[in-house]
Amino acid sequence: MKSKTEIQNGIIKAVNAVRENNPMAGSITNTITINFVANAQLAVGGSAAMVYLPDEAEFLAKAGGAFYINVGGILPIYEQTLPLTAQVLHENQIPWVLDPVAIGIGEIRTKFLLQSKEFKPSIIRGNASEIIALAGLWELEGENKSNVRGVDSTDPVAAAKAAAVALAKWTGGAVAVSGETDLVTDGAVIAYSRGGSDLMKKITGSGCSLGGVAAVYAAEADPFTAALTATAIYNFAGRAAAQKAKGPGSFQVQFLDELHNVSAEDVANNPFEIEEV
Amino acid sequence: MKSKTEIQNGIIKAVNAVRENNPMAGSITNTITINFVANAQLAVGGSAAMVYLPDEAEFLAKAGGAFYINVGGILPIYEQTLPLTAQVLHENQIPWVLDPVAIGIGEIRTKFLLQSKEFKPSIIRGNASEIIALAGLWELEGENKSNVRGVDSTDPVAAAKAAAVALAKWTGGAVAVSGETDLVTDGAVIAYSRGGSDLMKKITGSGCSLGGVAAVYAAEADPFTAALTATAIYNFAGRAAAQKAKGPGSFQVQFLDELHNVSAEDVANNPFEIEEV
Amino acid sequence: MKSKTEIQNGIIKAVNAVRENNPMAGSITNTITINFVANAQLAVGGSAAMVYLPDEAEFLAKAGGAFYINVGGILPIYEQTLPLTAQVLHENQIPWVLDPVAIGIGEIRTKFLLQSKEFKPSIIRGNASEIIALAGLWELEGENKSNVRGVDSTDPVAAAKAAAVALAKWTGGAVAVSGETDLVTDGAVIAYSRGGSDLMKKITGSGCSLGGVAAVYAAEADPFTAALTATAIYNFAGRAAAQKAKGPGSFQVQFLDELHNVSAEDVANNPFEIEEV
Repeated sequence: MKSKTEIQNGIIKAVNAVRENNPMAGSITNTITINFVANAQLAVGGSAAMVYLPDEAEFLAKAGGAFYINVGGILPIYEQTLPLTAQVLHENQIPWVLDPVAIGIGEIRTKFLLQSKEFKPSIIRGNASEIIALAGLWELEGENKSNVRGVDSTDPVAAAKAAAVALAKWTGGAVAVSGETDLVTDGAVIAYSRGGSDLMKKITGSGCSLGGVAAVYAAEADPFTAALTATAIYNFAGRAAAQKAKGPGSFQVQFLDELHNVSAEDVANNPFEIEEV
Repeated sequence: MKSKTEIQNGIIKAVNAVRENNPMAGSITNTITINFVANAQLAVGGSAAMVYLPDEAEFLAKAGGAFYINVGGILPIYEQTLPLTAQVLHENQIPWVLDPVAIGIGEIRTKFLLQSKEFKPSIIRGNASEIIALAGLWELEGENKSNVRGVDSTDPVAAAKAAAVALAKWTGGAVAVSGETDLVTDGAVIAYSRGGSDLMKKITGSGCSLGGVAAVYAAEADPFTAALTATAIYNFAGRAAAQKAKGPGSFQVQFLDELHNVSAEDVANNPFEIEEV
Repeated sequence: MKSKTEIQNGIIKAVNAVRENNPMAGSITNTITINFVANAQLAVGGSAAMVYLPDEAEFLAKAGGAFYINVGGILPIYEQTLPLTAQVLHENQIPWVLDPVAIGIGEIRTKFLLQSKEFKPSIIRGNASEIIALAGLWELEGENKSNVRGVDSTDPVAAAKAAAVALAKWTGGAVAVSGETDLVTDGAVIAYSRGGSDLMKKITGSGCSLGGVAAVYAAEADPFTAALTATAIYNFAGRAAAQKAKGPGSFQVQFLDELHNVSAEDVANNPFEIEEV
């Protein structure tokens, strides 16, 4: 198992590499938070582009260093775009992040989330309920029962530990579970990352944009490091922004500023613990 | 007729109930302002989810405490999604808010707005021109002629009084007309709510998000109280935000902060007068 | 050739006319930045409305003083909407702005950008790579090779000079090339406008919204003046906002405030030089 210092060095490298190389991570993501996803990706030093159509997604998937698929706000064309894109990413071994938001609702989403099992997303990001539900849908983990309510989680992060490990083992990548304390695992190690703010629940897109930022880091680092770096920078920036904010409006503003300004060392030093699975 | 104090007590209850219960109000709403609608709903204490597809909308309509339909930025699939959703809401007696923005433009919008007469939205929110036009489309009120220009009103609120009352009587719900002074009626009582700021016209989505916030309150209060609470919190927050803002950018930020921070009592005490119809 | 003072007087008139007349410029534009485009158009004093469907776009194109077509984030229906709208605009001699973002990617975009040659956009706005690529696609200028990477330019503005002039001569309108120093030409005169901030690259939509703002000015001024006014107000507001901002989040806020508050004289006095082609 990697030491905490080795992991921290990986985080520092990831933060700096993104700022230096400005990697492109394309996205298919919901329109509710699409602007915030792009702005968060830009704030950490990445480049953003969002598409809807199959041919554009295929082009963008091949052109970027990583890709982000968020299944919120499904449009009819996604029935074609999503599986094609995931297949292209998988075949070309391009790292991609899956956010299974709203899992359990709607035919196109369910069908794609089933298909995506074979396309092995490098990083899966969701709240506890979503992670449990995805492990259930993929028949990797049958013990827990998920409680999804729209986009909100009604399960604690700890309840998703077995599901997260099972998903990570299946994909060979990483899984990030968002909650009070965040859990990031590659199936062998679990990191618990702390920080953030209750105000993150009072703005839309903190979860979606975390997935987009994880994709940016996945262009420059292995899935576990990328997922943990994204989680850590969110926890640092969320806590720091909340100290300066007077409500959800100013929190958003401060949060983007913090994503942009935080030092790589501060991201690496954001509190986390590790344990072996 | 309810006394002003009774109405104010209803507003206090509505503001607090939303903050305590975090009710989910799903939306079908235009992409221009979709992010601002969600952030406003979250800022007042509600939960937000937005969809496009018929099956997702049906699920969300049944799952939430209320729903919001805003017909700006129509997409092709809305031809199926909108009437199905409104029917589901009506049949399940789930309160829903209709914003007939851009009424008069486009075939799908016009067809749905005609159909929606039978699905009796609990709250109709629009500017004076839109309210007059909807009453005309529903053949409830033939005296006034509406002047719609895209999304802008060219009629004063007073001109929409008869139309608003006629619509409220038909639906058995409430109608909120936005303008210099806002008018909210349930067909029996009219409340005139004052406040806001000229800067609200300098940002996109102040009207759309008011509809979304009214839906959040409609999950916890009767239509008239919900519509008046949403109008009052917007008037309070708009005026307070304008005092701190230096332009439309900072106004948006302050406005979301105010929505989040204002006390229930301050919302209830936002100036309004009532009259019997 | 117009003198610099004459050009500056034209800028002052354009800024003031938009603030007085509140002209409507409809848009078909990508969902990533659609909210920011609308807010920028409102901040400078215009009115905004965005559509997707052919019949709505036709209505809006005829109803407004100008129109904006940005081909980012193509949806399936755009195959019908875009050529119809451009044709209506051309036939009715309504000024319109084209942003050929992501040129070279995707079938629908490529087909429309080819068709748009005949519909002669009044203003074409893009980065150097996009302008070079469009001149190539229209076979107006074969010497340079464009380097488009998603939405980012990899060419300097100077490299796009010949392409910009060729495009402007073909359309009889103006071309604005965004970069370190911006270039605006009507095919006879070139204006080089300076200012802005590196933070403009750290937020999404600075280019898209510049196109939308150019459309607002095109409703009140000739294409060259409109394009230069939009470029100048962006350069002024970008520089001024950067001095007050602490990162990309606060930059966005300050930028919208500056667009709203800057005097017409300050826009006209934003540094630029002119040369004859």
